Amino acid sequence: MKTTALIMAGGRGERFWPKSRRNHPKQFLSLTDDGKTMIQLTVERISPLVSMEDIYIVTNRDYRQLAIDQLPGIPEENILCEPVGRNTAPCIGLGAAHIAKKYEDALMLVLPSDHLIKFNKMYLTTLKDACQIAEKNANLVTIGITPDYPETGYGYIKFDSREPEGRAYKVERFVEKPTLEVAKEYLASEEYLWNSGQFIWKVSSILKNIRQYMPDTYERLMRIQEAIGTPDQERVLEHEFYAMESQSIDYGIMEKAKDIYILPGTFGWDDVGSWLAVERIKKTNEFGNVVNGNIITINTKNCVMQGGKKLIAAVGLEDLIVVDTEDATLICAKDSAGDIKKVLENLKICNRDEYI
Amino acid sequence: MKTTALIMAGGRGERFWPKSRRNHPKQFLSLTDDGKTMIQLTVERISPLVSMEDIYIVTNRDYRQLAIDQLPGIPEENILCEPVGRNTAPCIGLGAAHIAKKYEDALMLVLPSDHLIKFNKMYLTTLKDACQIAEKNANLVTIGITPDYPETGYGYIKFDSREPEGRAYKVERFVEKPTLEVAKEYLASEEYLWNSGQFIWKVSSILKNIRQYMPDTYERLMRIQEAIGTPDQERVLEHEFYAMESQSIDYGIMEKAKDIYILPGTFGWDDVGSWLAVERIKKTNEFGNVVNGNIITINTKNCVMQGGKKLIAAVGLEDLIVVDTEDATLICAKDSAGDIKKVLENLKICNRDEYI
Repeated sequence: MKTTALIMAGGRGERFWPKSRRNHPKQFLSLTDDGKTMIQLTVERISPLVSMEDIYIVTNRDYRQLAIDQLPGIPEENILCEPVGRNTAPCIGLGAAHIAKKYEDALMLVLPSDHLIKFNKMYLTTLKDACQIAEKNANLVTIGITPDYPETGYGYIKFDSREPEGRAYKVERFVEKPTLEVAKEYLASEEYLWNSGQFIWKVSSILKNIRQYMPDTYERLMRIQEAIGTPDQERVLEHEFYAMESQSIDYGIMEKAKDIYILPGTFGWDDVGSWLAVERIKKTNEFGNVVNGNIITINTKNCVMQGGKKLIAAVGLEDLIVVDTEDATLICAKDSAGDIKKVLENLKICNRDEYI
Repeated sequence: MKTTALIMAGGRGERFWPKSRRNHPKQFLSLTDDGKTMIQLTVERISPLVSMEDIYIVTNRDYRQLAIDQLPGIPEENILCEPVGRNTAPCIGLGAAHIAKKYEDALMLVLPSDHLIKFNKMYLTTLKDACQIAEKNANLVTIGITPDYPETGYGYIKFDSREPEGRAYKVERFVEKPTLEVAKEYLASEEYLWNSGQFIWKVSSILKNIRQYMPDTYERLMRIQEAIGTPDQERVLEHEFYAMESQSIDYGIMEKAKDIYILPGTFGWDDVGSWLAVERIKKTNEFGNVVNGNIITINTKNCVMQGGKKLIAAVGLEDLIVVDTEDATLICAKDSAGDIKKVLENLKICNRDEYI
């Protein structure tokens, strides 16, 4: 069976401000030393498994040109634009509708566009195993990440450790972000994995599940699918997509569906959730700093500094994030990285849209 | 007797980098809320006591135009340029030579161009008292600052607390910057004042002292004086000034001369020695921040922030100095303000003169 992929690239990624902006979000930024953007790395990573003409990007109109520019190998008609954000279930449904129009049935990888994977070969092996299960006997398959610590920022997936199907386990349930105490219990139980938002299934399977659990969305997706390639395509997409319920795939499908398998991933996954991740993914120097660009450091340690054209002199600093761009500079204590969104709120309130 | 003033404005002020640059040092910067530069404030402060045509500026050629632009009321011929820096004794001598050429004798205030005074009326009263003593019976007069704490960055002046002459005391000796322990002893003794580098004397007195203690310098100054107004003026100045011994007025004259009086000043003096001073001289907001310019602060306290055109977002910061300029941004821990010079050293080593 053909293997296709849907890469979700509609996110706005405020946590990488000021590098990420409303018109240039995280997935289109380069945060690694190789200069490739997150979405370019995502496509490159799966290219041994999926042909370029079978990779679909779902994004929105604002980012269409960025996607075309950054992914010249992908046919332009595979870059699908949501008329409006309706969370992941409609996004994935839209991709499934397009793939099902092209192939009678196919395997479909559903992947975020803004995560990093350290061990690509292991990752591909996991994806191949997942494809095999998805094709052979599973309804839906997901990849869970073996947790290192009790993270409270991710959802978890409980699996049944008995009778694995090769490397895959039956999923018992999807659970929301836990409290620290609960996360610690999850970790100790050895029966929970992090929900990484990566799915593998047959197009026919996911559509069947959408029909079952989200029937209104399914009908609208079918009308969208029917209009593909007709003069009405855009009009129907716009009309039906606006009318769809905003729903995550986790809540809409995964928490309800039966016969889900999970494969534990140990391939060095990073969701690159904030500037703090840069320390994990880039090389630190002898003082624990990650420094790029036009920066002089004096007695400065454990800082993440992304310079731009302007000279930045850092003197006596510790545990700071400094990010310089053409029109804005962020100076943020590491333990306040979560407050970067407050800067954006402040900018919105003050109508300073040029910085958002 | 006519009262004249000599304002010393040749300093290069590295401690206010990146605002201060080699071609635009501290005395020509505005560091107060009123927008006036340090040298403009210095001139304004003494204007009730000294006519504009009797105020002399000694600076160097690089700053001549800045001085002309910032001090339009002062005759251009009063802006004297040292061909080379030779410390304060030759600088003061040059001013004295010019004043002595103009007036048979005159009182001469010698003032730094980059200090601040909070209580201007008290300051003028002190200057007037000093003038009276200097005219009547003292050889040399200086103004000492009543110390608040055992500062180790200033020189001290020991005075004889017995038999004051009005508000003036006889100076016993000038002493160099002390250790903390010694500074504490000075403070406890109540017999030491800070050396603020402000002097009041008759031109005839200071020239007499220079002749006595720095005879070579005196002869050269006399040759310079003779050439004033002749076609040879520049050539003689250049030749003689280069040949002069580099010497401070403190070491060259004050530590040796007899019959020196000191007036204690309690007029809110600040030498504005580093960015930390900005906290003392500008209003802090409710979070203890001094913030100017295009800056957003989120959970940030006790910071000194001078923004420029570029937006700076400060998130979760404490006790930092942030100064943005057109081409360089300083981010410096308050307790590392003394290390700003290391940035300049680094820039010099790397031949990045555009930033110096």
